[in-house]
Amino acid sequence: MTLDQHAKKVVLRSFTYGLYAVSASHKGERGIFTANWLSQVSFDPPLVALSVERQSSTLELIRSSGRFVVVPLQSDQAKLAGDLGRPRDRAGDKFEVYDLPVVISETGDPVFDGGLGFCVCAVQTETGAGDSIVLIGEVIEARVIEPGEPLTMRDAGFRHAG
Amino acid sequence: MTLDQHAKKVVLRSFTYGLYAVSASHKGERGIFTANWLSQVSFDPPLVALSVERQSSTLELIRSSGRFVVVPLQSDQAKLAGDLGRPRDRAGDKFEVYDLPVVISETGDPVFDGGLGFCVCAVQTETGAGDSIVLIGEVIEARVIEPGEPLTMRDAGFRHAG
Repeated sequence: MTLDQHAKKVVLRSFTYGLYAVSASHKGERGIFTANWLSQVSFDPPLVALSVERQSSTLELIRSSGRFVVVPLQSDQAKLAGDLGRPRDRAGDKFEVYDLPVVISETGDPVFDGGLGFCVCAVQTETGAGDSIVLIGEVIEARVIEPGEPLTMRDAGFRHAG
Repeated sequence: MTLDQHAKKVVLRSFTYGLYAVSASHKGERGIFTANWLSQVSFDPPLVALSVERQSSTLELIRSSGRFVVVPLQSDQAKLAGDLGRPRDRAGDKFEVYDLPVVISETGDPVFDGGLGFCVCAVQTETGAGDSIVLIGEVIEARVIEPGEPLTMRDAGFRHAG
């Protein structure tokens, strides 16, 4: 059985995604990137699964701290989603570079204070998944920042590679 | 630290989801249900993560066969998404009850022939996640059925419990 590469792309591109700023911090170092491979996976307890590329520099901060923060972006933040998609080794500290407003969570993590809200997730499991790592984390803190419409991948005009 | 239940709901409800018919079959038995907790999680190899409630009857068919099939629904299939959300023990064989057109995949699985397309995923890992099970499967077959717009949870008017 040979996988039809064209059909694979068409079908996988029809999946629907939101866009999120995901961040982590450890010992004063902080990282933030744009994620779309993300889903709630359990109601009770509330768990979120996140796929992160193995070479992501923020992955190390997530592993060191045992936490990641998810900020659903607002519908007018497509440019920011593009900016936060740049790798940290080229962009530098993106909180600083893009002058992001920061709020400190109860867990002591710096959180981008400009999305719809945030949830802090405590990593429960990590599973290798091809070129990425799937992290499942329990929502241990949540705060609403500004009620509004979420940014979707489709509305941002981002095409998913599939 | 006490989790703010209201904020948790608001933030988790702002996550963006598509709606998919997910099916599995084993030894003549077949199950199909509506899923939204689903995401690609790797490009190479192409992997898809799916969260399934522990009590789902289709979960047993996925485990027995080692496969699940994902059909992204079309934008006008909100009613079908509702119908396929009914539990099999009450609804019966939903392929039959809803008279779903069927195509047989190369893997021999009956697939709903009315979505945007389908991909057959071979289960690689299974991880317990609270009230659900997260399955990661490799896309081993894909076919386009009808190009079109995907059905999103928001457009279907389904509110995510959060």
